[in-house]
Amino acid sequence: MTGGPGSGPVAPTAGASCRLRPLPFGAVRITGGLWAARQRVNREVAIPAGGKHLESAGNLDNLRIVAGTATGAARGPLFMDSDVYKWLEAVAWEHGRDPSIELLDAQRDVTAVVAAAQQPDGYLDSVVQLRAGGERYGNLPWSHEHYCAGHLFQAAVAQARATGDRGLLDVAVRLADHMVATFGPDRRRDVDGHPVVEMALVELYRETGTPAYLELARFFVEARGHGLMAGYGEEPTYFSDRLPVREQSTVEGHAVRAVYLAAGAADVAAETGDATLLAALETQFAHMLATKTYLTGGLGARWDREAFGDPYELPPDRAYAESCAAVGGVQWAWRMLLCTGDPRYADAAERMLLNGLLPGVSLRGSEYFYVNPLQLRSDAHADDGRSPAHGRRGWFECACCPANIMRTLASLSGYLATTDGDGIQLHLYAPATVDVDDMRLTVETDYPWDGLVRVRVEQAPTRDRTLSLRVPGWTAGATLTAHGEPQDVAAGTYASVRRKWRVGDVVELALPMPVRFTAADERVDAVRGCVAIERGPLVYAVEAVDQTQDVLVDDLRLDPAGPTQVEHRSDLLGGVTVVHALGRRGGDQGPGGPYRDAATARPIAPGPAVPVVAVPYFAWANRGISPMRVWLPEALPTPPPTA
Amino acid sequence: MTGGPGSGPVAPTAGASCRLRPLPFGAVRITGGLWAARQRVNREVAIPAGGKHLESAGNLDNLRIVAGTATGAARGPLFMDSDVYKWLEAVAWEHGRDPSIELLDAQRDVTAVVAAAQQPDGYLDSVVQLRAGGERYGNLPWSHEHYCAGHLFQAAVAQARATGDRGLLDVAVRLADHMVATFGPDRRRDVDGHPVVEMALVELYRETGTPAYLELARFFVEARGHGLMAGYGEEPTYFSDRLPVREQSTVEGHAVRAVYLAAGAADVAAETGDATLLAALETQFAHMLATKTYLTGGLGARWDREAFGDPYELPPDRAYAESCAAVGGVQWAWRMLLCTGDPRYADAAERMLLNGLLPGVSLRGSEYFYVNPLQLRSDAHADDGRSPAHGRRGWFECACCPANIMRTLASLSGYLATTDGDGIQLHLYAPATVDVDDMRLTVETDYPWDGLVRVRVEQAPTRDRTLSLRVPGWTAGATLTAHGEPQDVAAGTYASVRRKWRVGDVVELALPMPVRFTAADERVDAVRGCVAIERGPLVYAVEAVDQTQDVLVDDLRLDPAGPTQVEHRSDLLGGVTVVHALGRRGGDQGPGGPYRDAATARPIAPGPAVPVVAVPYFAWANRGISPMRVWLPEALPTPPPTA
Repeated sequence: MTGGPGSGPVAPTAGASCRLRPLPFGAVRITGGLWAARQRVNREVAIPAGGKHLESAGNLDNLRIVAGTATGAARGPLFMDSDVYKWLEAVAWEHGRDPSIELLDAQRDVTAVVAAAQQPDGYLDSVVQLRAGGERYGNLPWSHEHYCAGHLFQAAVAQARATGDRGLLDVAVRLADHMVATFGPDRRRDVDGHPVVEMALVELYRETGTPAYLELARFFVEARGHGLMAGYGEEPTYFSDRLPVREQSTVEGHAVRAVYLAAGAADVAAETGDATLLAALETQFAHMLATKTYLTGGLGARWDREAFGDPYELPPDRAYAESCAAVGGVQWAWRMLLCTGDPRYADAAERMLLNGLLPGVSLRGSEYFYVNPLQLRSDAHADDGRSPAHGRRGWFECACCPANIMRTLASLSGYLATTDGDGIQLHLYAPATVDVDDMRLTVETDYPWDGLVRVRVEQAPTRDRTLSLRVPGWTAGATLTAHGEPQDVAAGTYASVRRKWRVGDVVELALPMPVRFTAADERVDAVRGCVAIERGPLVYAVEAVDQTQDVLVDDLRLDPAGPTQVEHRSDLLGGVTVVHALGRRGGDQGPGGPYRDAATARPIAPGPAVPVVAVPYFAWANRGISPMRVWLPEALPTPPPTA
Repeated sequence: MTGGPGSGPVAPTAGASCRLRPLPFGAVRITGGLWAARQRVNREVAIPAGGKHLESAGNLDNLRIVAGTATGAARGPLFMDSDVYKWLEAVAWEHGRDPSIELLDAQRDVTAVVAAAQQPDGYLDSVVQLRAGGERYGNLPWSHEHYCAGHLFQAAVAQARATGDRGLLDVAVRLADHMVATFGPDRRRDVDGHPVVEMALVELYRETGTPAYLELARFFVEARGHGLMAGYGEEPTYFSDRLPVREQSTVEGHAVRAVYLAAGAADVAAETGDATLLAALETQFAHMLATKTYLTGGLGARWDREAFGDPYELPPDRAYAESCAAVGGVQWAWRMLLCTGDPRYADAAERMLLNGLLPGVSLRGSEYFYVNPLQLRSDAHADDGRSPAHGRRGWFECACCPANIMRTLASLSGYLATTDGDGIQLHLYAPATVDVDDMRLTVETDYPWDGLVRVRVEQAPTRDRTLSLRVPGWTAGATLTAHGEPQDVAAGTYASVRRKWRVGDVVELALPMPVRFTAADERVDAVRGCVAIERGPLVYAVEAVDQTQDVLVDDLRLDPAGPTQVEHRSDLLGGVTVVHALGRRGGDQGPGGPYRDAATARPIAPGPAVPVVAVPYFAWANRGISPMRVWLPEALPTPPPTA
């Protein structure tokens, strides 16, 4: 499998060092459940609204002005073109998923606008052309010229694969050739401050077979960490430029930049068989998971510079956890899964998708969160357009997130299953059909609300094949039923069955989904003494709108020893399973300031017991904006003795 | 008392609505102890080094270029002039404290540079003149033109009061007259995005008697909150522009801007007798203390926009707590103390001075912290020039803090004592002499290391007078000895003695200084389950350099039930009292990621007991930079039962 029509969002070449390979894009169809609903809203609401925003915010006009078909000055931030490309990519995958004349027309119209803006020599970046007096690459660490190019390449590849239309691919190839002629070890040694072009060039290589694109991607990956971006007004950390990628052992600096770069480096490692680079990326990913990832899979602890924090610096209230970082995190995790076959990467991707990316868009599909905190206090002031205290917004001055979510949802079926040549691996669970070669499966499940996953063979292959189902790391007591009696299967593995399949064969994976109370390592100082509610793959949130009216969520405590109950509410938030738990009101803090003598004033007896209602975190802030907590202080089971 | 030679840094007019009035600047002389040592270093090291930085960073050249005595382009940020003025103010107070030919020469040289840059009509702002094509006030919310003017006025007032030299005052008056002619309710209705000019104009009014300056200050205070800064790319919160000052009930947005504005509003309220404005400021200050002030007195929880956070958002690791905010906090607190006589403001000022401002400068006086966090983790990366992981730095690209600390230290004796006409109030304790009218006192104390304060009458007034000594809010068991037996005095009050004094009379205030373990209100989520060490007015820090080598400060716990010991070490950090306490190593977190099942993995048994050494927070990071915590998790006294 090496790109070409029918491929999905990541398509390693036949020679790539990959344990697993994606299925063709059309091989998996999500037929119902949570993800199908999100994809439908994405198609019917988000993508059309996004097209209108590209028009009203000036993204398309910027390109038209360059082409001479409109007049005026460039509008918006430097990377305006990239939003057009991300949107085009979403349109392409969506058309590939379910063809439509409307999508195809929109794609062709906007592609024509892009193509018309390209310069005769292949260069293309509307804002730089209009604003920097046309000086190309004059300020590359900040200009986002390669960043925009990367998103163009990804859109072009998606268009070619999903619709067979090669119009945008021609534009991409001309621009890529211009870049190849300009940059490289023997030419200009400069890199864009914002990665993405690395993975995009590898995909363009996969699609076109042009080795120079892979070489340029490798150059851009290797060029970092050598001071090329010194003197551009930021510490090198910000640009992921403090150390060479292969010498780095963590993630740091701007979170989206860091994970985009890592995803591109993984693509380079796969296509060049660079085992030491891959090993460095494994170390980095592990350190990210262990010390710099929110329970939600959110990435980036700091508003300042949109950056990863120090290890264990994970404040819930000021979490940045940009929606784009969740997109990049999924892209990186997926590539690591392909390279290694390690189910931890699939676990991470699922956590990021359901709890990191999905909260980024409202249930009705037309409003977005840029940042995704795990706590919103009472009296929170909205002092920024991105502030969660505003609630989700229809678009942003810096509108990187909306179309990034759109393209991920539209291409989601590309992330559900893989093959290792012999077998089929199911990684994410949703009602779906899977067609590979001569084998056809249907997946029936109410996941993520219920842990029963039933896979039925609809068409049987002629030879023995292995079917593998991911057993998530959060499970306990999971069983697989394939040969009669249920067999225990271990968490954090793939449960596999190899046989000569017959039509009508059924394999059942049962993942018990008790309510789980989760605590953090004590080194995560910001949530010391707190617990969070999880169930199955979902992180839950306690939102004020669901609580007894006079309970202040800021002060609420949660009793993990108390009884819990789950209730599926098809009438609520598009259909969610609600968790009922036991809490206590905050104790009386007494008068005076926030600091007091530890010996006489602590511990404070908790207040009376109150019911606590929790909803999936991804669904919060869909009924207005109100105080919310993922982490709640643990209620002491009995009042402590007074000191 | 109404300004004029001999006045100190704040000099309300005779008609001002003030309960207390400052003493003349020379009335209080700090003769020894901690503050005298800091003032000596400030004079001998910081101020001369600051003068060199103003030369090398281009601040003085910017002014010379405007005057035509140098050539080139403006260097540095927009507010470069203000650093010159703050430094001139420090020089003036320092000369007033202890006259010197060198200081006077430096003052006259730099004043001449400033005067030569002033335009014929009085306008003065070198960067705007050089960079904005000379367009004045074209972008006032960002240009800092009034901000620079304000610091000029403050320096000019200091120069006139402390040295009698009116050269800079003439410059200030010409600029102020130009501003009066330009701005006001019937002229241009614009305000600078960065306050300071409000308090500076009131001081200029006090010094010159020109009512138009007070009127303009009142206009600038009242103009906020009416949308004048809408459309300048920030939410109004940032500019303290969301609500009119008199309708605001908290502090929010950029911390330095907010407290500078509040200090200026307090000056306006005092001089205009505006009781409702003062009441609003009292509410704001109380809300700041209760919900938005670090234990150190530090202000500003967010790096992003250098802003106050939401109520109770006080992360120790990402505390911004800018040194300039401590300066502004002291200025505001002092004005509130003058207006109300409420000792809580003196408590706040002392906390901010010792624990918020003093850590901003190294013990040797030549390096500065811009931000003052309460925790620095292992593996912290310095991703910003202001990052505490760098340690203190000699100067900054944005160098607002250094000279701000210099001018505060140089004028510190202006903040020790007041009079209410009849009596004398001592607010801050240091070895000192106090001369008021016909009364002369000496203060003997080892404060802040010891709580005994002995006041001796060296010259007696002819009539009865009241002597009042502040009993800080943190004390318990304080006694005052004036008439034989010690009398209990209540914390958070002034202990007063009224009598016909005789030479040789002694009043002794004894403030017991046990080691205190302090806890935070549970709503301060970021330090839940933690305790901090305090002793007397000082907050302590646990710095890695003082601990047993193999103890990781990140994981260390503190046992507030354990024994404590204090030890004065004259050899350490310029002489500090060290606290020895009992801690426990962090418990074993086991393998795996940072999140785990709450029921089976918690609570973690603490590790073995270890000694903990704490030093005053202000002295941290003077032996290189290493991990540090003010708040440490509370060690459970006994291992908890396993669940």
